[in-house]
Amino acid sequence: MDVLRKGWFTESCEMWPGGTFSFEVKEVLCKEKSQYQDIFVCNTKSFGRVLVLDGIIQCTEKDEFSYQEMISFLPLCCHKNPEKVLIVGGGDGGVAREVAKHPKVKEIVQVEIDAKVIEVSKKYLPFMAVGFNSEKLTLHVGDGFEFMKNHSREFDVIITDSSDPVGPAVNLFQENYFALMKSALKPNGIVCSQAGTFWNDIELVTKTLQFCRNQFPAAAYAYASVPTYPSGLIGFVIGSLDPNVKFDSPQITFTKEEERQMNLRYYNSDIHKAAFTLPTFIRNQLA
Amino acid sequence: MDVLRKGWFTESCEMWPGGTFSFEVKEVLCKEKSQYQDIFVCNTKSFGRVLVLDGIIQCTEKDEFSYQEMISFLPLCCHKNPEKVLIVGGGDGGVAREVAKHPKVKEIVQVEIDAKVIEVSKKYLPFMAVGFNSEKLTLHVGDGFEFMKNHSREFDVIITDSSDPVGPAVNLFQENYFALMKSALKPNGIVCSQAGTFWNDIELVTKTLQFCRNQFPAAAYAYASVPTYPSGLIGFVIGSLDPNVKFDSPQITFTKEEERQMNLRYYNSDIHKAAFTLPTFIRNQLA
Repeated sequence: MDVLRKGWFTESCEMWPGGTFSFEVKEVLCKEKSQYQDIFVCNTKSFGRVLVLDGIIQCTEKDEFSYQEMISFLPLCCHKNPEKVLIVGGGDGGVAREVAKHPKVKEIVQVEIDAKVIEVSKKYLPFMAVGFNSEKLTLHVGDGFEFMKNHSREFDVIITDSSDPVGPAVNLFQENYFALMKSALKPNGIVCSQAGTFWNDIELVTKTLQFCRNQFPAAAYAYASVPTYPSGLIGFVIGSLDPNVKFDSPQITFTKEEERQMNLRYYNSDIHKAAFTLPTFIRNQLA
Repeated sequence: MDVLRKGWFTESCEMWPGGTFSFEVKEVLCKEKSQYQDIFVCNTKSFGRVLVLDGIIQCTEKDEFSYQEMISFLPLCCHKNPEKVLIVGGGDGGVAREVAKHPKVKEIVQVEIDAKVIEVSKKYLPFMAVGFNSEKLTLHVGDGFEFMKNHSREFDVIITDSSDPVGPAVNLFQENYFALMKSALKPNGIVCSQAGTFWNDIELVTKTLQFCRNQFPAAAYAYASVPTYPSGLIGFVIGSLDPNVKFDSPQITFTKEEERQMNLRYYNSDIHKAAFTLPTFIRNQLA
């Protein structure tokens, strides 16, 4: 947090040396240290409220919807009947907010390791924490890794909304994590994990996709535009137990009226397909 | 250029208040003032060589290919037979480099207003300035606006590779510029202009697309991922004199071997289609 100077916050992370994003802070709302990480929330000149964990931007009020909608609706819409969903992480509530919108979802279980992130989000980030109000949701504070050891063949979709693989989330990018998710899935289940971007983290993307491919008969990489993330993108690794899944052909499409009712601002069926369409250099790299 | 401190360059532009990108500089190669603008070239820790005009990042060695390929191949591949192409701007040579690759292009005319940018690019940015070596190219130093007044019904495709609408490029975002391009096109001709991004410049995008729609029977907005541009994207407004053009269905598709021979690292036929696929909020805004 020592990078807050002259009213500007500058992101700082060993993963992305040599380039960084800064935003102008209007008001610091929260600066705490939890058991797991530094938590920083502020109001900004141009991005609304912003959540920062361990010096890394997690979400801004301006653009969080693209990330939350895509990490939720990409896997949900690849599944024929995503009735029961597990969210690992997602302590700001934004993914729960999105998953609850899907008409076929009946039950959501969420396991977030850091109670402090939930508490801070409820207090300062109500536009995301509104997700915790869903009647579909059961929220646990705990380790998603440990939780899944006791929950086999239970979920249709597992979404891992983690921070980057430095700090508490490092275990969520290993192959045994994908194996564990596989064991917690019902037949034809689907997983979706945040997985870095092809511009800055090509080794991380390649490795994470390989872990997923080792465990799942079908796996793919997708991405979405999020301006305040490094390189302006976020990537997802998606795996399915259904070897015949067609990731880029959603099982359900919404009308414009349904999109409006669900307040979907980024996701639509065409964007779903486009999200799996890769620039040549990364298509060749991941082939 | 006063934002270069402690070995880091920070972008500064009135168009995007409250957020900014910085990169670490290894070596300053050029710092000059031309008749039109401040020119700054440096070598960086993580982005290779970088060209900055009037404090705004124009291109970095790491990611310039996505911009150059897309602003060139999107319009070229929307045209059945793009034999003669006009490039307005593009003083670094990168667009000429890409346009020359297209198998149907026979003749390229380029009009760049700032001779100093060409000179500096030839000296310090050979990976882009190599475009000036094409035998297909005739390069003029002058005002593209004035040039087109004397060249009617001459070009199949006009690509405007300008800086942002502050400084010398401001005229290239007006409706009379689109009218002038229209007059310089052959029947079924196509134009493509850099046009801001939907996250930061939504009014600019909306206005520029409207200007294009007012002049052309078919017009659309597309975008590509360029990490070092604000919001990590760049947008394009494309107009065609052919009312039946299908912008998202390229007229020519390349094999992987052809992509490799042309050193296309970003553009492919699937990315072409995806580039016109808009997130819901901007699809609705531009409808």
